[in-house]
Amino acid sequence: MAKKPLGPSTSLFPMPALLVAVKTAPQSANVMTVAWAGIVSGDPPRMALEIGRNHYSTPFIESEGSFTVNVPRSDMAVPVDYCGLVSGSHDPDKPATCRWTLLPSTRIASPLIAECPLNFECRIERKVEAGAGYFYLVEILETHADEAILDGEGKIDAGRLDPLIFTPDGWYYRLGERVEQAFSAGKALRRA
Amino acid sequence: MAKKPLGPSTSLFPMPALLVAVKTAPQSANVMTVAWAGIVSGDPPRMALEIGRNHYSTPFIESEGSFTVNVPRSDMAVPVDYCGLVSGSHDPDKPATCRWTLLPSTRIASPLIAECPLNFECRIERKVEAGAGYFYLVEILETHADEAILDGEGKIDAGRLDPLIFTPDGWYYRLGERVEQAFSAGKALRRA
Repeated sequence: MAKKPLGPSTSLFPMPALLVAVKTAPQSANVMTVAWAGIVSGDPPRMALEIGRNHYSTPFIESEGSFTVNVPRSDMAVPVDYCGLVSGSHDPDKPATCRWTLLPSTRIASPLIAECPLNFECRIERKVEAGAGYFYLVEILETHADEAILDGEGKIDAGRLDPLIFTPDGWYYRLGERVEQAFSAGKALRRA
Repeated sequence: MAKKPLGPSTSLFPMPALLVAVKTAPQSANVMTVAWAGIVSGDPPRMALEIGRNHYSTPFIESEGSFTVNVPRSDMAVPVDYCGLVSGSHDPDKPATCRWTLLPSTRIASPLIAECPLNFECRIERKVEAGAGYFYLVEILETHADEAILDGEGKIDAGRLDPLIFTPDGWYYRLGERVEQAFSAGKALRRA
């Protein structure tokens, strides 16, 4: 198969489609969509997220030092896309526009989005400078899950969660078929 | 919907299922599977990846200062899982076990995995210390794509790529249906 060089790019597949919510005033919050994010360490759990300097949320994120990361279901693609297209400077109450309910967090001031079945409370550990840009390194202080996405053992089930996926060709997808079980399927290649 | 607190966790959905390949000797490389990774900045493109201190690959990664990140197709789940289950100390030629072909990179010494339709050449910019752990911040120097995954405009198409997805409940999935177009679907919620 011939390979074609495309130059340096950010075309990683798949990406999560995440909603970052930050308190902007008592009882109100702004929500922005972020796909440039990933878990980067486990003890304690940490996530890295790129959040541009010029976003409406950024000064609130800086002053709060914390925010929530909310994982939307696949049927939330329209409001998720809206929160990426429209700035809080044009719509200071995106949760109302999206008809979302905000719930209090337990460890931080920024709220959870009730309609997202999975939510993380995150505290900024560091702003990592990297050349002209930067990204936030956050500690995950708490995880909240809807009962409906938990299996019989109380663990999150990806199929029940039905997360929205972003692909950098500009589409939202949902999960398809299960292909194999991890930490198991590969045993077939072990040498006798 | 009742929310259940699960404590701090790394249960982000979805995660990529990536193969990190690093040169271990002339004409040979080790391959390890990594899901804790994400794009964290765009100019230049950068990725953050957690790679534990004690992996077989780690000293080679440290001495080379670079590695490739290869995005497997959904039909590669068995060898991808193998490269996460088995250390290079037990199988110093995993590419042979997996029947993969190694191709030379253009900017770094570590090779590309030919069977993966998308490949990134990465140079370590920084090892980011974070508490007891650390992760690598890398610059993406070059991207290679199989011609077969490009659309008529020469852009990567997620459906043609058919990437493998990891979910932290321990399964590999493939992409399902397209739900909505990004940077477009949300316009429906814009106020008149």
